[in-house]
Amino acid sequence: MCDASIAVFDSGLGGLTVLKEVMRALPHENILYFGDMARVPYGGRSPKTIIRYALENVRFLMQRPIKCLVVACHTVSAYALQDLQREFSIPVLGVIEPLVQEVFKKNPKRILILATQATIASNIYPTRILEKDPKMEIFSIAAPLFVPLVEEGLGAHLATDLIVKEYFRQIEGQNIDAAILGCTHYPLIREAIQKGLGEKVLLIESGAPTAKALCQLLEKEGLLSQRALGKLSFIVTDQREKFCRLASDFLGQAIDLEDVEEVDVAVL
Amino acid sequence: MCDASIAVFDSGLGGLTVLKEVMRALPHENILYFGDMARVPYGGRSPKTIIRYALENVRFLMQRPIKCLVVACHTVSAYALQDLQREFSIPVLGVIEPLVQEVFKKNPKRILILATQATIASNIYPTRILEKDPKMEIFSIAAPLFVPLVEEGLGAHLATDLIVKEYFRQIEGQNIDAAILGCTHYPLIREAIQKGLGEKVLLIESGAPTAKALCQLLEKEGLLSQRALGKLSFIVTDQREKFCRLASDFLGQAIDLEDVEEVDVAVL
Repeated sequence: MCDASIAVFDSGLGGLTVLKEVMRALPHENILYFGDMARVPYGGRSPKTIIRYALENVRFLMQRPIKCLVVACHTVSAYALQDLQREFSIPVLGVIEPLVQEVFKKNPKRILILATQATIASNIYPTRILEKDPKMEIFSIAAPLFVPLVEEGLGAHLATDLIVKEYFRQIEGQNIDAAILGCTHYPLIREAIQKGLGEKVLLIESGAPTAKALCQLLEKEGLLSQRALGKLSFIVTDQREKFCRLASDFLGQAIDLEDVEEVDVAVL
Repeated sequence: MCDASIAVFDSGLGGLTVLKEVMRALPHENILYFGDMARVPYGGRSPKTIIRYALENVRFLMQRPIKCLVVACHTVSAYALQDLQREFSIPVLGVIEPLVQEVFKKNPKRILILATQATIASNIYPTRILEKDPKMEIFSIAAPLFVPLVEEGLGAHLATDLIVKEYFRQIEGQNIDAAILGCTHYPLIREAIQKGLGEKVLLIESGAPTAKALCQLLEKEGLLSQRALGKLSFIVTDQREKFCRLASDFLGQAIDLEDVEEVDVAVL
């Protein structure tokens, strides 16, 4: 079982920000990344559809030798984690618990949740945070435009600064001291968010805390690989070539197109 | 057969701009609008996936009494029109032919195509235009951000003006005299596009020309309805309530939630 792969599931490309941290923390592991490029983005869809897509994708993934599943997508972690944990016997780790634990290491008092419409509507971050500290003051903003802005390469554009400002108008004067980047794309627009919130606001993202929680989980379960160097492979539901190109750029290492498999959504 | 409905198929909400013109031109017709809200947007997907989704949706639609299908989505019209026409025996009308005919009524010399990445990659507008006039000068720009900007209600925001300017940088000094709004969302961002191109540039959209072509088609085929007033109904694959609210706003008439049916993508 130790030789089986870690699966990292995401709705599309965004989960590569989590994958990068998992690769860094666990260089000996084989990792299989799944991106549902045929049905991305999930952040504006209904809970029912998010859960359906998550289950379909992971049922397919489970035909492979997988020892552990990381749900990199916050929207899926918000809605489908329990269903996934119930249906599959391997450990399933979402990004929300590790991120919330990270929040409490930093001890903020007034925190902003930035996420997709669906994640905000789920209320999962405020719920989890208030369970641990009912006095925390929480503000929530759905920022759906951040994803296409990043994907169009406009993260560092003046237009993005203006959109950030527009989104943050509703928390003006609220003296936020930390913000959760509650969508896998948002670390890629980190500078614009930091500028919009001010340099004093601490930005908390999910990649490194999730990778750390994964290490602890594998260690606890006796599932760590002993091989010299792990191998990286990918499954996507559409746009194999485009994904390969973008993932190579993002990870800063050439990915062989042969390591990117395309599966037809019809078989899911 | 005259009493059967006209189906208007779109990947999501955008096709409402076409629906509005069809309703205006054909008030006696029953119209059934289909929006694939569970898998929108199509504009960044592969041809294979666009064709698959189009066929699945229209196969489902064909279980209803439909006399004619309007493909409101430019991306679907670009890739799947022939497959749809081959598979189904009713008339299938896309938005591209009517729009190209409209272009030639206006007699431009240097024209800009604005559309999704997939529609631009299909090269369908340049191909159709150059078939009719090989001397026409054509410029193409994929403008994927226009859709989420409209959906976030930022069509009239300074950030949108900057993004328009960014997209149009590549045609600076090209003396365009007309532009095709080659995506159903783009008429909703018309003012920003007009500002970006200058007042002299003629913007050509698909709604009215498609509605006119549809009238001619129904008349020619003897399919016009004789009823007093048509009825409007909807099928969506996700987000029934949200769709109902947005469609009511957009069409400027209250849509009864009972007239919006939600079909599970699993049955498609």
